[in-house]
Order: sequence, then structure tokens, then C-alpha cells
Amino acid sequence: MEVQVTQENLSRALGNVGRVAGARANLEILHNILLRTENNQLTVAATNLEIASTQRVGAKIIKPGSFTVPAKLITELIATLGKGTIDLKVTNTTLLIKSGKNKATINGVSDEEFPELPIIEKIESEIELPLQLIKDTINQTILTASNDATRPVLTGVYWHTHDGYLYAAATDGYRLSQKRITEHAGELSAIIPTTTLQEVLRTHNDNDDTVQIVFDDTQVIFKLADGEITSRLIDGKFPDYRQLIPSSNETSFTTKTDDVKQIVKLASLFARDSGGSIALSVDTTTNQLTIRSIASEYGENTSDLDVQTSGTDGAVHLNSRYLNDALAVLGSPSFRFGFSGTLSPCVMTADIDEPEYMHIIMPIKS
Amino acid sequence: MEVQVTQENLSRALGNVGRVAGARANLEILHNILLRTENNQLTVAATNLEIASTQRVGAKIIKPGSFTVPAKLITELIATLGKGTIDLKVTNTTLLIKSGKNKATINGVSDEEFPELPIIEKIESEIELPLQLIKDTINQTILTASNDATRPVLTGVYWHTHDGYLYAAATDGYRLSQKRITEHAGELSAIIPTTTLQEVLRTHNDNDDTVQIVFDDTQVIFKLADGEITSRLIDGKFPDYRQLIPSSNETSFTTKTDDVKQIVKLASLFARDSGGSIALSVDTTTNQLTIRSIASEYGENTSDLDVQTSGTDGAVHLNSRYLNDALAVLGSPSFRFGFSGTLSPCVMTADIDEPEYMHIIMPIKS
Repeated sequence: MEVQVTQENLSRALGNVGRVAGARANLEILHNILLRTENNQLTVAATNLEIASTQRVGAKIIKPGSFTVPAKLITELIATLGKGTIDLKVTNTTLLIKSGKNKATINGVSDEEFPELPIIEKIESEIELPLQLIKDTINQTILTASNDATRPVLTGVYWHTHDGYLYAAATDGYRLSQKRITEHAGELSAIIPTTTLQEVLRTHNDNDDTVQIVFDDTQVIFKLADGEITSRLIDGKFPDYRQLIPSSNETSFTTKTDDVKQIVKLASLFARDSGGSIALSVDTTTNQLTIRSIASEYGENTSDLDVQTSGTDGAVHLNSRYLNDALAVLGSPSFRFGFSGTLSPCVMTADIDEPEYMHIIMPIKS
Repeated sequence: MEVQVTQENLSRALGNVGRVAGARANLEILHNILLRTENNQLTVAATNLEIASTQRVGAKIIKPGSFTVPAKLITELIATLGKGTIDLKVTNTTLLIKSGKNKATINGVSDEEFPELPIIEKIESEIELPLQLIKDTINQTILTASNDATRPVLTGVYWHTHDGYLYAAATDGYRLSQKRITEHAGELSAIIPTTTLQEVLRTHNDNDDTVQIVFDDTQVIFKLADGEITSRLIDGKFPDYRQLIPSSNETSFTTKTDDVKQIVKLASLFARDSGGSIALSVDTTTNQLTIRSIASEYGENTSDLDVQTSGTDGAVHLNSRYLNDALAVLGSPSFRFGFSGTLSPCVMTADIDEPEYMHIIMPIKS
């Protein structure tokens, strides 16, 4: 193999696929990056057998071929080289990398030991979405997925159709998020691992206006402008989470997101001793939200905020971290918070008609 | 005690002194901040018995007094409150903090348990310097001080006079830095702990054009515009480091600092297996600097750079991290590197007449 590429393109490609190499991989070869010529392009790929990430770089192919080298070393080397043309040449068991007055050799391994990259043979579902909408959906849902490996279906985000819409939803039993993504005529029910969705978030491409997402029974592919991320799906049935969504709330308030962010942060300083528990109470007569936290040893904090209220007076205890997480992803300058007594789920949405995103937090029993 | 202060001023003061509280302190009270009214100011102070840091904040004193509260909690609380006026009031064993619609109480302890803040009774030496010059001097010298507690004198920076100049110097036995700070008529010989100098670097004040540094036999005070940092000096005699400075070099080159930074970074990628060792060689016929590193398992890297040379051809092995550290603090767009064979110290200075800063690195025996 002998090719010529630009440092900028190769460095971006290696940065995108490099994280997958070596992640949770016992096999030595999975710490390597695959370099392979294809037509007038150099394919750069890595896999951990669950996720495979591939990027294509425009290249001048002098001699076709393929080779694998340690991901970390080549990624750091190419990132450190100056801008300009890089010559890559495989000789026997080494890759020679020339750029300006710098010459490096990296010892590598034949691509014969590298696993086959996954392909989708029978397309079950195909969706085209703007990249920004995909990123927003991922950011708004992965935070409520579970880390508990004993219930694998909850460690992913449930992409599915319902009443003519495509939804993404995730829950860890303490909180739940649901995003209505777009109208969609077909049928889909797939649980995508959060690690895969994080890779999609972190992959940088210049030309990704829209992304094609293709599903078969066991896999999903995100087709980006310069490459693909392929992943297995999580096997199993996602719980019927819709029954957890309250149809109405006894108490609710609307207010500015940033104002509540600040007083939740203040309250959390005094909530470390109590597992993050803070008390919200709503006075519908004075239109006041009060957030209070008590650290028996250190002191206590009380913040009042003028809000718009409706319904009856009410109070509820929440984990300040969950509330903080939700405020960070609502994506709206003002929001609505609804609840019914101390035990029912609390519902947060943007303060608009028909919000597309809903975030639910279970109260702490006080 | 009852006072009114602005959030901005109190937050900056707490941020400046807070790091000292609790650092290496076994005594519970040393995790607290001392708040004390003095004339029309609130003094905010912390100490770990080695370093004491004091800041003064303009305040409206309603009732004079003093109190101590946990440093971490009050620092975070005040930093999180919005801009504006803060009311502080001591009632029995708590500090009440009111700001807008936020009320907090923090449990505290009487100042009677707090250690006396150090004072200087007999001034031995007094120097006034621009803050920027002090910060440059600290940045250029602390990196070569030792971490080895078995030779305490080497864990500080040696501020001293020599031939009518004030110098700062530090060495860990592998490298040495020396800064000629300013002309100075008096006599000084003091070893300042690096932890103290780091506090000076990290303390932010708006109005510090010049700083007074006052020494007695055992202490130093850095008098900043809004406060002081007081520290014990390190007891002992600093070694006669000047004998280590070569008077001439057989081989030398001058070049741009950024160019060498890049090729040292490239070389360091392949130097992890060999304890960071990289080889520099200078060819005076072709005016080339070559930096080479070999990782037997992974590969190797060679970079050439056009430089200006003088003297004879030569080669030397260095720790790439030391070279990288030195390049980061030279403070000059181009520099001179001189050495004599493989065993003598290498000398780096800015490429100007009479450079004020000198950085010396001992070679690795190859």
C-alpha cells in the first residue's frame, strides 16, 4: 500500500474512529486501526466488535493495499504533524509516514487478522434526519438511560414508532425522557446502546447536513457524509413506559430555566449529606416557588423565586442532580414543571404548545 | 458581627484564600475561613500553619466582630450567588447569609480557636517589583525545583543577591533554572517553598501593579493590593549551583522556539518506552538539527530542522519532558541551545544579548 493524503483529513478521520479502537477489547488487533485503499479513497476503520466506525479520506493511491497499526500512536502522530501532504507506505511489517522533514515508522500487523467490518444485508427500516436533530435527540435522552448491566434493555435508548411518529425514549427507573422526533409512516422498534449514540455525538464531519439511519433486525448504521457508525442493537423488549406519564398535574409552575438552574445549584451545595435531596414547594397564592435544602451538620439554604403557578399548592422532594441534568437539556429559555403530591412523577417540558420533549423525575419519598 | 459586602468582592477574596484552608491540615479549624471586621473592611483569611493568605474586602460594618466557617461551603455558596449586595450576620453559632431572595445559614466556630495570623517583627529585606515580573520569575523557576522531601532546600526557589543583582534559582539535580530579576543593592538569601509561590501565581487581584516582598529571618510576605500571602522560609543552605553552569559550549544552535516544540512533541510520542529519552544531533556543515526517538516495540521517528549552528558537530540524549518544559517557559520566540559532548549540561537561553533567564538540563547517559 502506498498513498498520499492531507494531514487535516487523515487527522480528523483518525480522531473520529480512534476512540472505538481498544475500548473494552481483549483482542490485541482491536487496538489497531485498519487502513485500506478503496477506489480513490483511504478507508480508516476501527471496531470493538460491538461498534464499528469507518471514515473515508480522499487520497492519491499510488499502490492499493491495506494494513493495521496501533490506533493511539498513529492518531497522536498524525495530529501532531503540521498541515500538508503526508505519504504513507507499507513495507513488510511497518508503515512509513513521511511529512515534510519528518519521517516515522510504526510497526503494524497485516489486515488479515482484523475482523470483517459489519454490513447490513436486509434493510428493515430507513430514516433520513438532519444531523442537528439527531444530536439534540441523543443529548436529551441518553442521560436518563440506566448504567445497570443487569437490565440491558434500560441501558439503551428506545427508538420506536407510535401513532405515526418516531420517538426516542430512555429510563433508568428514577427518571424518563421522551423525544418526539418526526412524523414517520413505517414501523420501528429498536434499542440503541448509549455508547453507540455517544460515538455519533462525538464524530465530527464537515458536510453532515443529513444523516441516514438504517436498521436491520440486529444492527443500526448511522451513515454520515464521510463514514459510518455501525452497532449491534440491544436484544429485548423495552418496558411500556407510556403508562408512567401522568395525564394531568395537581400543581404546576412556569418560569425561566436559568433562574431555576441557579437556585438548584445553591440548594445542591447543602444537599450533599442527604443524597442530593432538595424540597420544592409552590404557593399558588403568592406565586412563589421555594427551594430548600438542609445539611444538618453544615447549615441550610432557602431560595424563593417569583413564578407563574396554576392548580393547588404543593410540595415535593427531588434529587438535585436529576433536576440539574433535566434543566441542562430542556433546550428552552422557559419551562413548565407539573406534579401531583409527594409521590407521583414530576413532568418537565418547554413552556410552549405541544412540546416535543418531556422529562420525568420520580420524587424522593420524604 | 454584621456586615454588608458585594458578591463580586467577597467571592474573589474567598477564591484567593480558600485554597490554603484545609491543605495538609489535620486540625479541623484550619478547614475554616476567618472573617473579621477591621475599620471599614472585612478581612478574609486562611492558614495551614505554613502559609497564611489574607484578603481585605470593602464592607459596610453594621456590627464589628469575627467568626469562622467551613471554607469550601462558603466559597462555593458565595460564588454561586448572583451579583449584588450580600448581608452577613453572626448569630450564636451560625453565619446567616442573605442575598436577594436567597437565605443560607452556615454553622461555624468562634475565631478564638483560629490560630494567630503571622506578622513580621524585624524586616531583614524589602523589595518592590512589578507583579508581572514576579509571576514570570515564578513560572520560569518553580518547574525545576525538586519534589524530593528528603532534601528540603531543593524543594524551594532560592531568592538571593549576587554581584549587585537579585536572582531566583531552583534545581532538582537533573535541571536548573536561573532568573536575574533586577539590580539590587542589599543582601538576601532566602529559600521560598514552591507551594507559596504557586499561591502567589494563583491569587487574582485587580490592582496589583507592584508587589512588596518583605523578608525576615524565617518568613516572607508578598504584599498584594488587597491582601498578603505570608509563608515560612525553608531552613538550610542552598547548594552552590553556579559551579554547574558551563562557561562555554562546544556545539550550539539557534532556532525558532515553536519549530522545536513541535518536533520535540513528535519525538516524545516514540520515547515513552525509553523513559522519554530522545537524541539531538547537530550537523554544522548542513546547518541541520536532527531529533530522533526509538520505541523498539512500536517504531521510530526522525525530524530534521534547518537551524543556525556554531562550533563543532555534536550529539546528546535528553529527557523530552524536560526539553518540552524548558521550551514552554523560555518566553522568547527564538532561543539558543548549547552543549559540549554527551555528558556536560545543556544550556538554553533566549536568543538575545545578555539573556536574563537560563535553563540547564543534564543529559541522559546513552
